[in-house]
Amino acid sequence: MGAAGIGFVKGHGTENDFVLLPDPDGVLELTPARVRALCDRRRGLGADGVLRVVRTAVGWDLGTPPPAGAEWFMDYRNADGSVAEMCGNGVRVFARYLAETGAVAGPELTVATRGGGKPVRFEADGRLRVSMGAYRLGGDGTATVAGQRFGGVAVDVGNPHLACVTDVALDRLDLREAPGYDTAQFPDGVNVEFVTPVHGGADDGEVRMRVHERGVGETRSCGTGTVAATAAALRHAGADEGALTVRVPGGQVRVELSGGAATLTGPAVLVASGELDADWWAALG
Amino acid sequence: MGAAGIGFVKGHGTENDFVLLPDPDGVLELTPARVRALCDRRRGLGADGVLRVVRTAVGWDLGTPPPAGAEWFMDYRNADGSVAEMCGNGVRVFARYLAETGAVAGPELTVATRGGGKPVRFEADGRLRVSMGAYRLGGDGTATVAGQRFGGVAVDVGNPHLACVTDVALDRLDLREAPGYDTAQFPDGVNVEFVTPVHGGADDGEVRMRVHERGVGETRSCGTGTVAATAAALRHAGADEGALTVRVPGGQVRVELSGGAATLTGPAVLVASGELDADWWAALG
Repeated sequence: MGAAGIGFVKGHGTENDFVLLPDPDGVLELTPARVRALCDRRRGLGADGVLRVVRTAVGWDLGTPPPAGAEWFMDYRNADGSVAEMCGNGVRVFARYLAETGAVAGPELTVATRGGGKPVRFEADGRLRVSMGAYRLGGDGTATVAGQRFGGVAVDVGNPHLACVTDVALDRLDLREAPGYDTAQFPDGVNVEFVTPVHGGADDGEVRMRVHERGVGETRSCGTGTVAATAAALRHAGADEGALTVRVPGGQVRVELSGGAATLTGPAVLVASGELDADWWAALG
Repeated sequence: MGAAGIGFVKGHGTENDFVLLPDPDGVLELTPARVRALCDRRRGLGADGVLRVVRTAVGWDLGTPPPAGAEWFMDYRNADGSVAEMCGNGVRVFARYLAETGAVAGPELTVATRGGGKPVRFEADGRLRVSMGAYRLGGDGTATVAGQRFGGVAVDVGNPHLACVTDVALDRLDLREAPGYDTAQFPDGVNVEFVTPVHGGADDGEVRMRVHERGVGETRSCGTGTVAATAAALRHAGADEGALTVRVPGGQVRVELSGGAATLTGPAVLVASGELDADWWAALG
């Protein structure tokens, strides 16, 4: 291998996967081209996104006061190189990394994200519980898959969702193409969830979900999508609060809705750590 | 991160990508479940295959005498966990790793593979030239994509290929599903290449190629596939020997055919190195 390179960690939460780049002092030149190469699953390491781990004091980039009490800033980049606000699965992996490296002590911390400070609690069973903040149910909408129409509801979880509760067997949906939707209703695009009706009660039931993420395609999990799915499934069951286990292709999480705010509890796994080849990194420019 | 884990290197050849596991003394317990998890692009590191790097003296597993003069054995596993014979792109990455770590000196070595010893030469321009061995043209065949039929020729490169020379714009082919073929002609399945006619001469021309790999799907490159494509394109041009540049979605290689044998010259890139999390590895069993 070439000269000592850039440190990285690879991990996932319900198979929504990330390359973490530890950069406590904010010295890394993280260009969109480098993010795209890192996330490329053949010519790079491969991931759904990059989480740069930087101290809030040096890395916060919004021009507003940073969230209070959040020592670490999750600088989240999508695989296409663009900056993103927040990722419910990513923040668990981010917190797991901080705990494993001793950067935080104790069972709770707040992570600074461009979507605000997100409190995270380490549960006794090894899972992590994230306070996702407010969500908001909107109007009805329709998604179309291979000519078949699915009624759903708009849910704003900081990003736009259209969550469709359906009796159709989820395995039979072809989500290789983006579902159709009303572009007047969702001018910035939309993440589309397909959700089964609640099995069990509103306080301890479960649903299954598949998701097509805006600009990405079908993924094995989407944190904000599980919140939208839970809101839609509970409404379908006649409830506006409750707690559900959401089974996604990449695993399962638990979503609790109360007082218009959501918490998301799920696993976070660190797979590997090492260094990017210095020559490879430098050539990306 | 957990306790010190299993060392790995990630690299690719024309975006056919691999996780290398250095195991000189042959002590690694590499189960199919671990290979599958490693190659999983969300819950693992992600790769088309695993290359275990082991000394031939301790790792050779065929029960036959190992190839002469080959100190290192490329123990190649497919992403599905199965054992495989040979990979034309993988052997370049394997040789690059040996050179970078100082395990070989000089411009040539022979790599032991289950498909025999493969001589590799490091070229002055940084590319690697692999003697792939014999190939054999077979009978004509037909591939079908979305109802459209493509005439091709069977080519045995140690594994079965059906290489179809076509004037259809390759970008317009939908290869998300496996092309149809005559299962009586290819009872073990077949890799299917779509190749443009030769542009330029038989000794210095070029072709474009896309490939659907048996049991995998469309890939960005396939080493033996480029050999099959070259044989078919040269035959289509009325030649039985020659040298072509083959442009694939992941880059380009040069294939030379002479006396019934093929050489493949192309790049090999090392992207990162590090350690797998010991707890993660142990949990795979």
